[in-house]
Amino acid sequence: ESGVELRVMVEIDAGMGRCGISPGIEAVALSQRISGLPGLKLQGIMGSVPGPKGDDDPALHQAKTKTNLQIVLDNKEAMEQSGLSIEVVSVGGAHCYALAIQMPGVTEVRAGRYPLMDHRLKSFLPELNPAAKILASVISHPIDGMAVLDAGHKATAPDQGRPVLEGIEGGDATRFSAEHGIVELEGDAQNKLNTGDKAWLIPYELGDSVNQYDYFRATRNGKLEGLWPISARGRLA
Amino acid sequence: ESGVELRVMVEIDAGMGRCGISPGIEAVALSQRISGLPGLKLQGIMGSVPGPKGDDDPALHQAKTKTNLQIVLDNKEAMEQSGLSIEVVSVGGAHCYALAIQMPGVTEVRAGRYPLMDHRLKSFLPELNPAAKILASVISHPIDGMAVLDAGHKATAPDQGRPVLEGIEGGDATRFSAEHGIVELEGDAQNKLNTGDKAWLIPYELGDSVNQYDYFRATRNGKLEGLWPISARGRLA
Repeated sequence: ESGVELRVMVEIDAGMGRCGISPGIEAVALSQRISGLPGLKLQGIMGSVPGPKGDDDPALHQAKTKTNLQIVLDNKEAMEQSGLSIEVVSVGGAHCYALAIQMPGVTEVRAGRYPLMDHRLKSFLPELNPAAKILASVISHPIDGMAVLDAGHKATAPDQGRPVLEGIEGGDATRFSAEHGIVELEGDAQNKLNTGDKAWLIPYELGDSVNQYDYFRATRNGKLEGLWPISARGRLA
Repeated sequence: ESGVELRVMVEIDAGMGRCGISPGIEAVALSQRISGLPGLKLQGIMGSVPGPKGDDDPALHQAKTKTNLQIVLDNKEAMEQSGLSIEVVSVGGAHCYALAIQMPGVTEVRAGRYPLMDHRLKSFLPELNPAAKILASVISHPIDGMAVLDAGHKATAPDQGRPVLEGIEGGDATRFSAEHGIVELEGDAQNKLNTGDKAWLIPYELGDSVNQYDYFRATRNGKLEGLWPISARGRLA
């Protein structure tokens, strides 16, 4: 009555086992129902497909991903065959962007990690380098083989795995508690990372780490170029 | 020269393998050095002792904790025998408060979790109930045996373990991703937690969860009594 028309996307469960309606008959029935309601306009279909785990075989994961993306495209076709018009086909996430843009019918890729990357997807997306890193300070070096960082879970937010120490050959961040990170040092590294030194950690999983901070310190060639507010920080749901 | 005197605490490594100087000769030598420097006043000694892991035997943990607390007290004595005056003996954390206050010589317990508690220490401190909980909403109930919450790692911040679903017999929060929590439902619970329902999660480890929020919503008998700012939120080091 107010003349407002809401555009609606139907989410399909494309292998995540989480959100979205079951593919096939249910998804088509929901889409038809939406298209028959006043004030709503069925605009498209969306789905998220599972990302790789650390020990997944890249070729196998690629094949599985293609199958899952095809679920979304097949549902688009089924909807169109039932007389509906589907403008947008949106798929996620970052791990499948290169594959998704090659599949005819996909109109949008929600590639969340694409701009900043993290350690988790590094071996699957070697063309992208991690840009978001956490700067830690060494607060203790009690014995030759160990350094303690001032960055623990609060600074790094473990999701699926531990952050990774960068640039110290023979150094490995092995253990984190709320406010401390423990680095084990072997060989020539044993006397590195002394109290007061700085160390870089690459987040294993980007989203939760970024979520800890109010802004990025953006740098180019080692120089600070700006502070970028993270406006979504802590908006949890 | 300015007449300022800084009071100094010496931290002992009392079993954490993290920060603090080695107990014994090194600790006494450091304390003597501090007491000989102008502008510094040696005030006391501090140490943190390891908390229990989920599968630790409480009696065994108690015995280990006593041994570790004793390290701090023995060092105090060694410092006093070397002619130094030690006013403060500070130990942590919450898990050993009851034991620590019975040990003559302890003057301060840093019992961080004491006011709010969490799931991790529940079986070791049955006299304290978890007071800080995370309120989640059910956003999907795709099949009878599963509900999806809008609270994932970003809202709950896993440290040593997963948050625990409260109050739903047969319901278990089994899997979390950045923004989603998966609840498995068995028996009578299968049709509970429908879309739009609320669910409570008890943090497994308190510190990192609290750190996600700008304020507490403080309630008494189910009524909101105030908003308490979490001023240390996100101050990561």
